[in-house]
Amino acid sequence: MCSVLMPRAPLRRVAVTGGTHGNELSGVYLVRHWLQDPSELQRPSFSTTPVLANPAAAAACRRYVDCDLNRAFTCTLLLSRATPDDPYEVTRARELDQLLGPKASGSDQAFDFVLDLHNTTANMGTCLIVNGSHNIFAMHLSHHLKLQFPEVPCRVFLHQPLQSAAPESNTLDSVAKNGMTVELGPQPQGVLRADVFSRMRALVASALDFMELFNQGTAFPAFEMEVYRNLGSEDFPRTEDGDLAGIVHPQLQASVADYEPLQPGAPIFQKFSGEDVRYEGHATVYPIFINEAAYYEKHVAFLRTEKLVISVPPLPALPPPLRVSNPSGTTGPVFPSEQGS
Amino acid sequence: MCSVLMPRAPLRRVAVTGGTHGNELSGVYLVRHWLQDPSELQRPSFSTTPVLANPAAAAACRRYVDCDLNRAFTCTLLLSRATPDDPYEVTRARELDQLLGPKASGSDQAFDFVLDLHNTTANMGTCLIVNGSHNIFAMHLSHHLKLQFPEVPCRVFLHQPLQSAAPESNTLDSVAKNGMTVELGPQPQGVLRADVFSRMRALVASALDFMELFNQGTAFPAFEMEVYRNLGSEDFPRTEDGDLAGIVHPQLQASVADYEPLQPGAPIFQKFSGEDVRYEGHATVYPIFINEAAYYEKHVAFLRTEKLVISVPPLPALPPPLRVSNPSGTTGPVFPSEQGS
Repeated sequence: MCSVLMPRAPLRRVAVTGGTHGNELSGVYLVRHWLQDPSELQRPSFSTTPVLANPAAAAACRRYVDCDLNRAFTCTLLLSRATPDDPYEVTRARELDQLLGPKASGSDQAFDFVLDLHNTTANMGTCLIVNGSHNIFAMHLSHHLKLQFPEVPCRVFLHQPLQSAAPESNTLDSVAKNGMTVELGPQPQGVLRADVFSRMRALVASALDFMELFNQGTAFPAFEMEVYRNLGSEDFPRTEDGDLAGIVHPQLQASVADYEPLQPGAPIFQKFSGEDVRYEGHATVYPIFINEAAYYEKHVAFLRTEKLVISVPPLPALPPPLRVSNPSGTTGPVFPSEQGS
Repeated sequence: MCSVLMPRAPLRRVAVTGGTHGNELSGVYLVRHWLQDPSELQRPSFSTTPVLANPAAAAACRRYVDCDLNRAFTCTLLLSRATPDDPYEVTRARELDQLLGPKASGSDQAFDFVLDLHNTTANMGTCLIVNGSHNIFAMHLSHHLKLQFPEVPCRVFLHQPLQSAAPESNTLDSVAKNGMTVELGPQPQGVLRADVFSRMRALVASALDFMELFNQGTAFPAFEMEVYRNLGSEDFPRTEDGDLAGIVHPQLQASVADYEPLQPGAPIFQKFSGEDVRYEGHATVYPIFINEAAYYEKHVAFLRTEKLVISVPPLPALPPPLRVSNPSGTTGPVFPSEQGS
């Protein structure tokens, strides 16, 4: 795994995926634009492929048609025999696995990197989601993006909980050799905001610039970085029937609340009956994804995280023979038949 | 019409409807709460019925299942013969017409007032939507609400364009003798925000208080009020295929842009290609519903309005014999079988 996550060869093929959730419109419209005019994705040493990940959901402006695509990339689902009754997103996950993977092979066939573009209704600014701090390449990419956009808070979230047996990743970026998710908010589902759109466009450009620097033989020194690591989720208060019985507390919903410390005993929910619900944990946590629309059905009012400062080792320069001065593949979009929406 | 819109008899039956659009959650959860505990809706002189208007859409957390319920209350649709192929919302509109109307009868059978609760993704604060300034009762109710909540900007929008033959109203509140729509934002679809929820709850309480004052014989003097009157809508820039070609301009999207003057020549859209699109009208207008998620499919980026100051005549006290000192009907919710979601 280390050889993959700290690559010793140039990146040849990169995918930028949008519309994995069809109502997160920044990625949907950026990808649609790039499919018409891919010029801003082109870099000298590698090809970049824009992919509309869930065209049916994007056409309907819904998160998904049958089930959440970004939870469908497990080896079990990808390798199981296709049937006519499969949910649309399971079929689409297999198509994307064919296009960008395959995840299970461990071969050279998979794309080198997938950058997956998302929006959240939470007030999370720019959040870069990396599977874990062992992903040295993604950590350096995140550090580069933080330095490129000092005026906008840009946080790194490690989504794999710290445990001995980490669960298999089920997200789109897991089908390629490496990947990262970009999560920008706040933006309502079904809405395009110009500021969020421009920020995502600039982040993608800067990420591709970083990959070009790496391919050209740049070495990146060690650094220390603040990160937020997943500790689990907190559900809304519920009735006996499982319906919502309350709402995120105004103090937690306040405009700067994501990433801010939440102390034990602080109010986190307001019940419809008027009563406050307080945080019963024993330690300070840092909530994120506060009041994300898509997480109501997942019984997640917010994620609890811990804030850490981690030391990231250097990313050494590629050995000279491996550097790339000319593109090895075609630069431009691929238009497989299943991508139209 | 004047006798209806300036009532000369006490209000007996009032409905508060939420979830007409199933992903506008303040109304959905207020109505669900009131169906369990209607005590805060009770007033001495009239009954108030909470109604979940579109239970199937609310269960799916979508605006609608087949078509927009809040455009389905035309006499043509309500009176046409039911068929098994009717869209869900057309069937539901007929059920609501039976429950709260009927719209077409002009008889005493209809509810006296429907208050319909909505949310918008636009930054519109509190917006009270009245069909026109001839609706003296709704204008006095709006004035009362503005005075009750001086700390929150509260605007009145007259949605019927000024023209000789006004189109038939197709919204839910048109099935009753009188009605008004409350539109609160900004709130993403599928999200409950505590501040918006509390504001809507307080507005409903204050509206019911006004009706109680009227029933008890209070006279309301004439006043002048600022209102915004509908002049029509502006679509996004589009490609030849009808797809979006741009986005609301950051200047128009700015946090205080709804209700602010838009001058001819000011930028209103930013194309994906980078080019600005400027407003080509000849007069200053006041845009509202800027970047409402549900209006993308209606080809509406915002509504143009004109700002007027209008004089509203007094609302005289009911003659003493007509006043009500005891409730005439039962106070509490009605639970028709079709309301469960």
